[in-house]
Amino acid sequence: MTDVINQLKAKFNSVALLTEEHEKAKYVNDWSGKIAGKAIAVIRPQNIMEVSEIMKIAFDTATPVVPQSGNTSVAGGSVPNTKGDAIILSLERMNKIREISPSAMTATVEAGCILETLHQKVEEQDLFFPLNFGAKGSCMIGGNLATNAGGQNVVRYGNTRDLCLGIEAVTSDGKIMNLLSGLRKDNTGYDLRDLYIGSEGTLGIITAATFKLFHLPTERATTFAVVPDIKNALSLLNHAQSETGGAVEAFELIPDVFLQLVKKHAPQYVIPFKNIPPLCVLIEISGTTHKKGLTNNDETAPINTTLENILEFGFEKGFVLDAVVATSESQRRQMWDMREGALDVITTAGTRIGFDISLPLDKIQNFVEEMKLNTESIISGLQMCHMGHLGDGNLHYSIFPPENNVDSLLKNAAQIKSVVYDSIEKYGGSFSAEHGIGSNKLSAMAKYKDPVALEIMKAIKNTLDPKNIMNPGKLIP
Amino acid sequence: MTDVINQLKAKFNSVALLTEEHEKAKYVNDWSGKIAGKAIAVIRPQNIMEVSEIMKIAFDTATPVVPQSGNTSVAGGSVPNTKGDAIILSLERMNKIREISPSAMTATVEAGCILETLHQKVEEQDLFFPLNFGAKGSCMIGGNLATNAGGQNVVRYGNTRDLCLGIEAVTSDGKIMNLLSGLRKDNTGYDLRDLYIGSEGTLGIITAATFKLFHLPTERATTFAVVPDIKNALSLLNHAQSETGGAVEAFELIPDVFLQLVKKHAPQYVIPFKNIPPLCVLIEISGTTHKKGLTNNDETAPINTTLENILEFGFEKGFVLDAVVATSESQRRQMWDMREGALDVITTAGTRIGFDISLPLDKIQNFVEEMKLNTESIISGLQMCHMGHLGDGNLHYSIFPPENNVDSLLKNAAQIKSVVYDSIEKYGGSFSAEHGIGSNKLSAMAKYKDPVALEIMKAIKNTLDPKNIMNPGKLIP
Repeated sequence: MTDVINQLKAKFNSVALLTEEHEKAKYVNDWSGKIAGKAIAVIRPQNIMEVSEIMKIAFDTATPVVPQSGNTSVAGGSVPNTKGDAIILSLERMNKIREISPSAMTATVEAGCILETLHQKVEEQDLFFPLNFGAKGSCMIGGNLATNAGGQNVVRYGNTRDLCLGIEAVTSDGKIMNLLSGLRKDNTGYDLRDLYIGSEGTLGIITAATFKLFHLPTERATTFAVVPDIKNALSLLNHAQSETGGAVEAFELIPDVFLQLVKKHAPQYVIPFKNIPPLCVLIEISGTTHKKGLTNNDETAPINTTLENILEFGFEKGFVLDAVVATSESQRRQMWDMREGALDVITTAGTRIGFDISLPLDKIQNFVEEMKLNTESIISGLQMCHMGHLGDGNLHYSIFPPENNVDSLLKNAAQIKSVVYDSIEKYGGSFSAEHGIGSNKLSAMAKYKDPVALEIMKAIKNTLDPKNIMNPGKLIP
Repeated sequence: MTDVINQLKAKFNSVALLTEEHEKAKYVNDWSGKIAGKAIAVIRPQNIMEVSEIMKIAFDTATPVVPQSGNTSVAGGSVPNTKGDAIILSLERMNKIREISPSAMTATVEAGCILETLHQKVEEQDLFFPLNFGAKGSCMIGGNLATNAGGQNVVRYGNTRDLCLGIEAVTSDGKIMNLLSGLRKDNTGYDLRDLYIGSEGTLGIITAATFKLFHLPTERATTFAVVPDIKNALSLLNHAQSETGGAVEAFELIPDVFLQLVKKHAPQYVIPFKNIPPLCVLIEISGTTHKKGLTNNDETAPINTTLENILEFGFEKGFVLDAVVATSESQRRQMWDMREGALDVITTAGTRIGFDISLPLDKIQNFVEEMKLNTESIISGLQMCHMGHLGDGNLHYSIFPPENNVDSLLKNAAQIKSVVYDSIEKYGGSFSAEHGIGSNKLSAMAKYKDPVALEIMKAIKNTLDPKNIMNPGKLIP
């Protein structure tokens, strides 16, 4: 321990190297406040050469390294364990946007850049980086890459992996791998880019990436629509996709249980219906054509008309029971503020068992119905909140205790989790859709992941991190 | 050798196991007729259990295995070398489409299924699988996955990797890994799916995959447009993307050299201009809304009007000099037949040096100009054909000899290749955009691939294929 600190001190000043407890506090504790780890030091390099130097020291001294950027992980992936033998390598000072190319429609950005900063910078050039979710103001690109972050626009643009064209990374022994690339096609060997993306810092450290950009939508139409059930919601989704040529930006499932929590705990958000309906979807569609009078298409229906036509068709077919369309940007913002504040609302509501699961779209309705029945047989009166990104099959499923009976939930937590995960497995779903494994889901990983895949992951981990210093105890059980 | 044959004979009949020279002929020779390998036998399993049994035998006897599906590789990846110690594992009898789910918009299909068969089957259900290129009538899904095949619709839908949600595969020692999945989000560990996709059969054998499907475009507008240069063509592309909300299905670059070859060698194709213009693009845009009178959008401009508006804007800005818009499906088909027959036309034209390269979009113009100058200094009068998928930066660049001087090209081939590859490297491009490495590009791989990436690839190969029996001598130099 002294050895690694001495070697780091010889190369880095006290801005880069933090060793005091009060300096380390914000890095060793996770976002939720539930996980508190320990670290020898926090080291904050400014460029890839420094990352390489740090990793060489860590490799030589066999010191565990926990890579961290925004530290907004909800799976415990970005904080060290309590052993206290690790250093935290924070990428927050590597936060440059190196290049934005409007003609190539790409941006190259460092791991410590805050997601929302990238949004703003590309939007200044009428471009759009679609990765988006509640933590955008504090999460950083490095963590987005490490966890293959998803969010609300995946239905149209895919996850972080789908948006990334190339990366640069440092290996566990400090070698620099340059796979930064603005190429849309490149078949020169194994897909190491995608192997590092989503590896949660267990194979090496991604220091920068080149991303695809898109044309900034110049018009958006947004609605809160009441639907009879999930099956009908999916019919509405398919119709909307077909009618817009795939321009559905978001398709979010919002159940009554969530709206009741909003009413109780977050009155700052506006629920657009007098009475809380049993099930809603928040839909956004977009267009890029109505700008700057470039063409003579003025006779084309504006995007709100397209949305209204979709909803009207939905009414006729029974997919939709009621709907409120945002008529101004501020009304649209209200709808999204509530959606983006969901994790805070749900956290405020108190004790719960939370899941981050995904299912094939045609299995979601069955799953939700089955869960109600199966958990009811364990404890009566559980509140199920099947909030989620319906467009991509991802539910942030929460189970709240019966009123005034938190203990019953805690006592039966293991059994409830098993019931949920077993059902997920039966329907070909995933026990970790977008938050990753971190330290929280290691037991599910051991139990539910295909055993041959797990064996191969372990073999790759051993090969690329032979001293097991890269974020040890995360992702791999 | 006798050992492996005896073990295979004990388990497989003479329909599955081919050992006679005349039976093996079509499997040991590649598509171009230029590469002729040798094999002990061809084994044609019918299901994944049989693939697993074969791999266990191969592993025990340390027999090299060359996986093969449609055998349309242009990089030598699907045929054995001339040692004669390998077996070819042909997936052609594993050709089932296991499931098409219109509600989940997915298809699960085996490796031996011909790409065009999948097209036809999903189109029967008004769905669309966008992977498309000239070889579609004979290439198979397994090879598409092994090479991460690209083609003409990548600009909108991405490569094979982008279209694939999950795979099942057999490891070098015969274990079965089930990562088949219809999930849009699944962050449970390392991305083994994408590691196997594009690994050219060197890590294991992909036996089936689940793919994303899309709504079948119900209207398409297609044009041959004359452009002043590549830079203006890209301005046209960006405008078309913006005006259609990203509905550009294809954006193909077609230079005069190619059209002259068509005139000379392939009079069956229709060139839509009286005089051959210096540079054209073949553009296709699509829509899904105008179908079955579902909505009252009849006043919306049909897709041809959208295309005409785009071209008109291009005329005004000088992006476009002339254009022919297809007015019927047969005229559209004529345009595509010529594009899809390009490899045949170019092959018929005789000796050439062919490249499959990609560049960042904003570097293509510079590269093409530089190549003309730099190769001219080696031999005068070379004919450069920079055909390609401009929308995704992929050029199928061919260099033909000066008239009546084939020898000069052959004599200077190494130097010409170096000039091209060095320039590609300078501009951050790729020496193998979509065809893969196979056996043809091993020396470029050794010279131009990032050395740390190459080292990691070799380590992964050694870990997952410890006896080096999976398509040895391919991809990894």
